[in-house]
Amino acid sequence: MHSAAIVGTGLIGTSVALALRAGGIVTHLVDADPAAARTAEALGAGTTERPDGVVDLAVLAVPPTQVAPVLASLQKDGVARFYTDVAGVKALPGREAEALGCDLASMVGGHPLAGGERSGPLTARADLFEGRPWVLVPSEATSTAALNCALELVASCGATSVLLDAEAHDRAMALVSHAPHLLCSLAAARLVDVDQSVLRLARHGLRDFTRLAGGSPALWADVLAANAGPVAAVLEAFAADVLEAACSLRELARSRGDTDVRVRGGDRLSTSLERGVAGRSGIPGPYGVPEPAHPAVEVDVGDSRGELARLFADVAAVGCDIEDLDLEHSTGRRVGRVRVFVVRGRAHHLAGELRLRGWEVTGPPSYPVGGFCDR
Amino acid sequence: MHSAAIVGTGLIGTSVALALRAGGIVTHLVDADPAAARTAEALGAGTTERPDGVVDLAVLAVPPTQVAPVLASLQKDGVARFYTDVAGVKALPGREAEALGCDLASMVGGHPLAGGERSGPLTARADLFEGRPWVLVPSEATSTAALNCALELVASCGATSVLLDAEAHDRAMALVSHAPHLLCSLAAARLVDVDQSVLRLARHGLRDFTRLAGGSPALWADVLAANAGPVAAVLEAFAADVLEAACSLRELARSRGDTDVRVRGGDRLSTSLERGVAGRSGIPGPYGVPEPAHPAVEVDVGDSRGELARLFADVAAVGCDIEDLDLEHSTGRRVGRVRVFVVRGRAHHLAGELRLRGWEVTGPPSYPVGGFCDR
Repeated sequence: MHSAAIVGTGLIGTSVALALRAGGIVTHLVDADPAAARTAEALGAGTTERPDGVVDLAVLAVPPTQVAPVLASLQKDGVARFYTDVAGVKALPGREAEALGCDLASMVGGHPLAGGERSGPLTARADLFEGRPWVLVPSEATSTAALNCALELVASCGATSVLLDAEAHDRAMALVSHAPHLLCSLAAARLVDVDQSVLRLARHGLRDFTRLAGGSPALWADVLAANAGPVAAVLEAFAADVLEAACSLRELARSRGDTDVRVRGGDRLSTSLERGVAGRSGIPGPYGVPEPAHPAVEVDVGDSRGELARLFADVAAVGCDIEDLDLEHSTGRRVGRVRVFVVRGRAHHLAGELRLRGWEVTGPPSYPVGGFCDR
Repeated sequence: MHSAAIVGTGLIGTSVALALRAGGIVTHLVDADPAAARTAEALGAGTTERPDGVVDLAVLAVPPTQVAPVLASLQKDGVARFYTDVAGVKALPGREAEALGCDLASMVGGHPLAGGERSGPLTARADLFEGRPWVLVPSEATSTAALNCALELVASCGATSVLLDAEAHDRAMALVSHAPHLLCSLAAARLVDVDQSVLRLARHGLRDFTRLAGGSPALWADVLAANAGPVAAVLEAFAADVLEAACSLRELARSRGDTDVRVRGGDRLSTSLERGVAGRSGIPGPYGVPEPAHPAVEVDVGDSRGELARLFADVAAVGCDIEDLDLEHSTGRRVGRVRVFVVRGRAHHLAGELRLRGWEVTGPPSYPVGGFCDR
């Protein structure tokens, strides 16, 4: 690949352009809003000048419902040898492209799993995709040459290619991303009219629960609309679970005194809660593998400025790398309790070393045995 | 208050005992499991010896469904002058205490809002309640003397008393704590049988979403059973929202080509998503006030050991206190992007200072103006 056209200079498009440019590829930037393209140009993502001839690859970084019409238009103008996109939904653009009579041999649908809540070119980074999965959904019609070009794109961005069936991708995204986002939004929306006197009783966990309810509503509405069927299926299944739990609770509320009903209902609840613990432990942690049980070293950090810095300096001095962090704190206190995640097997050692350095480590014990820990 | 009996030496009971003891109050520890009481004793929470006479206050730190029977038993033995509890549900214990013929004048229901996922005496801390709200639900029958004793307890633990009606408390807890916990568990439970090939496509946000799905299933089952009615009501309302959203999505899926339906459905979705953003911003942040929009300084942190320590040392040197932290990272990278929350109004200053020190600060701009920021 020597040249590329980036169509749509939002977060993803601009980041792709920055990554390609860092690899010496000439990038031509296009956006429906010329100011956005000029912004990306000013950030060093490429040039807004039209390419002289046919570019090797056109990357469509537009919302899912715009992929097919934009593809048709670019192919009509013969802009590139090959085409790919980065939309979070794959089946609908593919179907619409076929319906519009696009050339399917030169097109590979794609979806880099990176980005998060931010949007727009100003937050773009060349290394946004480093180490991330990048799904490719070649159809039966896709040529090997087109697929190889897409594989080269993914490698240039430092990501890992993952080949998937388009429908399988969409169902997976519905489950692990789209539906959770919408569920979070619905939950957070329920809090809109709630009085502060009630909200102040909320604990830190509620902010975590609704953290996904951020991000551009317009972009997310487009993604959800484009993956409507699979997302609806997840929502309906979840609503059924919720109503079943509500039923158990209603039965419990009515059963005051009836021990059998109470025990059965309590057991059903406990089972749901236990499955919840199990389900959570399967979610990949920082290294893409399930988070081990009790991986964190918990340290109490005081209010004085610089405490966190001293803590992490000590962690580094002990020779541990910090993989993840959690902060817990009470209203009116800064910081408070810090959970430091280190490589499995090092937690006890780090806990012991920090205790020797005078830190108040609440867990785990310095030695991995049961019984009293050295407090 | 000179003496207290702590009945139930789990996380909360032991923490209360530690706090009271630090204030010079004699604490007598009792637990259905004598080993648990001895553990708390070994941690310095008090003595397992029976009190000589009547203690001033008995604190019932037992699950909600056990409060009334334990209260009846303690009152029969004339253990204390006044009684309070710490269960997360208030209406049911009150009703059951009345039904059992307990003396309601000497009893004040209470609920300290602290603790989180951990349980058991080993994780107890004297300052667990510092700065936290502590709800008290005096009934019409509660004597002023009993209430004053409870207020003294709360003050001794460094918490802030909040007087509430018992039913209002339970409805509030259902909304901001109990239902979210159960919803998280149900969501996480759906992930149990999902293949790793799908889970690896999940992003960091999914772990946040299911973070509440931790904690002791047995304890939570008891809390949920004791607040069954209000929690069921929240779940039913939420399920209705979810099914309505699924309906909109199904309509969108069917409406390919019908622009009106698509626009209406898309608008309904956007409205839900926007309400989600609004709802989230109302949730109290570290200082108990709603989190300001874009409060965080975002810094890219490299892989080298000690980077985090250097970053926080620089933040301290600039004269900023860290109020909260967020870490984002890609699979295969440690740390990555750190969001540092500082006092509102200082973010731009900190961003500028960190840039001068060579940090790669992705936001906000050094000066709070629109347009190009100095990268």
